[in-house]
Amino acid sequence: MPWYNSIMFKKIVIFGVGLIGGSVALALKKLPQAPQIVGVGRHSNSLQEAYQLGLIDVIETDLSSAMQAADLVIIATPVAQTPAILRAIRPFLNDSTVLTDAGSTKSDVMGYARTELGPQFSQFVGGHPIAGAEKSGPSAAMADLYVGKNVILTPENETAPEALAKVTRLWQDCGAIVSSMTAEAHDHVFAAVSHLPHLLAFALVEDLAKRDNADILFKFAASGFRDFTRIAGSHPEMWRDIALANKTALLRELQIYQQALTEMTSLLVQNDGDALHALFAHASHARNDWAKSKIQ
Amino acid sequence: MPWYNSIMFKKIVIFGVGLIGGSVALALKKLPQAPQIVGVGRHSNSLQEAYQLGLIDVIETDLSSAMQAADLVIIATPVAQTPAILRAIRPFLNDSTVLTDAGSTKSDVMGYARTELGPQFSQFVGGHPIAGAEKSGPSAAMADLYVGKNVILTPENETAPEALAKVTRLWQDCGAIVSSMTAEAHDHVFAAVSHLPHLLAFALVEDLAKRDNADILFKFAASGFRDFTRIAGSHPEMWRDIALANKTALLRELQIYQQALTEMTSLLVQNDGDALHALFAHASHARNDWAKSKIQ
Repeated sequence: MPWYNSIMFKKIVIFGVGLIGGSVALALKKLPQAPQIVGVGRHSNSLQEAYQLGLIDVIETDLSSAMQAADLVIIATPVAQTPAILRAIRPFLNDSTVLTDAGSTKSDVMGYARTELGPQFSQFVGGHPIAGAEKSGPSAAMADLYVGKNVILTPENETAPEALAKVTRLWQDCGAIVSSMTAEAHDHVFAAVSHLPHLLAFALVEDLAKRDNADILFKFAASGFRDFTRIAGSHPEMWRDIALANKTALLRELQIYQQALTEMTSLLVQNDGDALHALFAHASHARNDWAKSKIQ
Repeated sequence: MPWYNSIMFKKIVIFGVGLIGGSVALALKKLPQAPQIVGVGRHSNSLQEAYQLGLIDVIETDLSSAMQAADLVIIATPVAQTPAILRAIRPFLNDSTVLTDAGSTKSDVMGYARTELGPQFSQFVGGHPIAGAEKSGPSAAMADLYVGKNVILTPENETAPEALAKVTRLWQDCGAIVSSMTAEAHDHVFAAVSHLPHLLAFALVEDLAKRDNADILFKFAASGFRDFTRIAGSHPEMWRDIALANKTALLRELQIYQQALTEMTSLLVQNDGDALHALFAHASHARNDWAKSKIQ
């Protein structure tokens, strides 16, 4: 029997039962021995909706009751709420409860956890499930959202091995592929491959939507525009929090990207068709090779 | 009987039997009285493939034969080849043959046609089918590629009404929605909603692909990156030609966009969460409203 079969969740508390938290709940409910899932959140409407959709078994507003005998707490709210949640639950946190989160930035979250949890920081494992999130709310939750997706965990030296094992098991139970790296490495990678593209897409849509002829522009925008801007339909509050939380890495990415655009603009000004062709061909091959590797 | 029912195509000549030309061919082959489709191209491999796939009825290398009794010539090659093709077919062009193209830029094409065709410029109608083109080649062709898609025609004062009517009918037969505007207006609209996003996507992929840690970046790039960069998988030669052909409008768009990025960067530097949230929220609403309007 592999070691992780000894990990059993009986009670899981989820803060934020939207797409991310709700999809974990749905995945766990498919297990042979599904845990009890307790939902806690800011919006009683969302909690009611999550309850009616069958994502959670119990709505809990009393933190003491919620935390009692909890095996695992998952914080799946916008990242900016994480420190307040950690602070609020700390008084009710026993030594056997493991904490994790699903935030898209990790250095800030690890810092919050260290500050708020004190010696119980060892019970916290930062996590980031890499799954599309342009839709939000309990109704967007899907049991298979994480199947075959990457989840990155960011343990530190203090992290208890049992805590890491439990959170690893959580995501494996959801069908995910679990990796570990430092919070700093995580934030650099995601500034480049996720946070920057989101800001670029928001900027393009806003650039066009503000114009006098926005109607005609949007009329003739087609499938390329649709896919390019899909991530500009993402949750504004979440992306404000991500941008601010990963500000340093993101500013560096913006600077590098603006430089790349400036160089591309120079090629165009100089009518350098060969260099433009080489650039487009290299990018096109890299993109298509990547897409093929992801289909496997 | 509506006027356009009197328009019948018996012989159509297509230069460039890739995704765009091949999809026209497949759509026309579904008509009750399908025309004969003659393929002409640079690559004998593509022509053979198009013939074997059933896109074209005849491979023609002799332009005199190809043009004989042709009702319609469709130029669906990369735009830069258009003047050479017009020059080559001019000696064989009778007065009843209508010419059109499928290029993504129109001011340049209308200029080429005016120069190369002389008094027969009246037989040429510029056209641009707005349909995804990140895949290319005969095997990418689809009979329904244009169903419900916009096609823009760019007639000028000299354009013969019968020529405009025939090209309109061509695209209606393919299931498209046909609009008209000036070539200049077309090029401004598409610089903003298509050409700029393509360059932004190429620039992002190239930016990441050149780095030492490209492997790890691509490993964790997910669905948002996939959609954002789909258009970076597009045909490099085609996009070099488009960028150069629509250089003036595109440079203006790049400048406006860089300014927008600079302003967004300032908000981030200033930790102005409220302004970032307002920007993201406005863009997100605009993008989602647009996507809803396109589903209708």
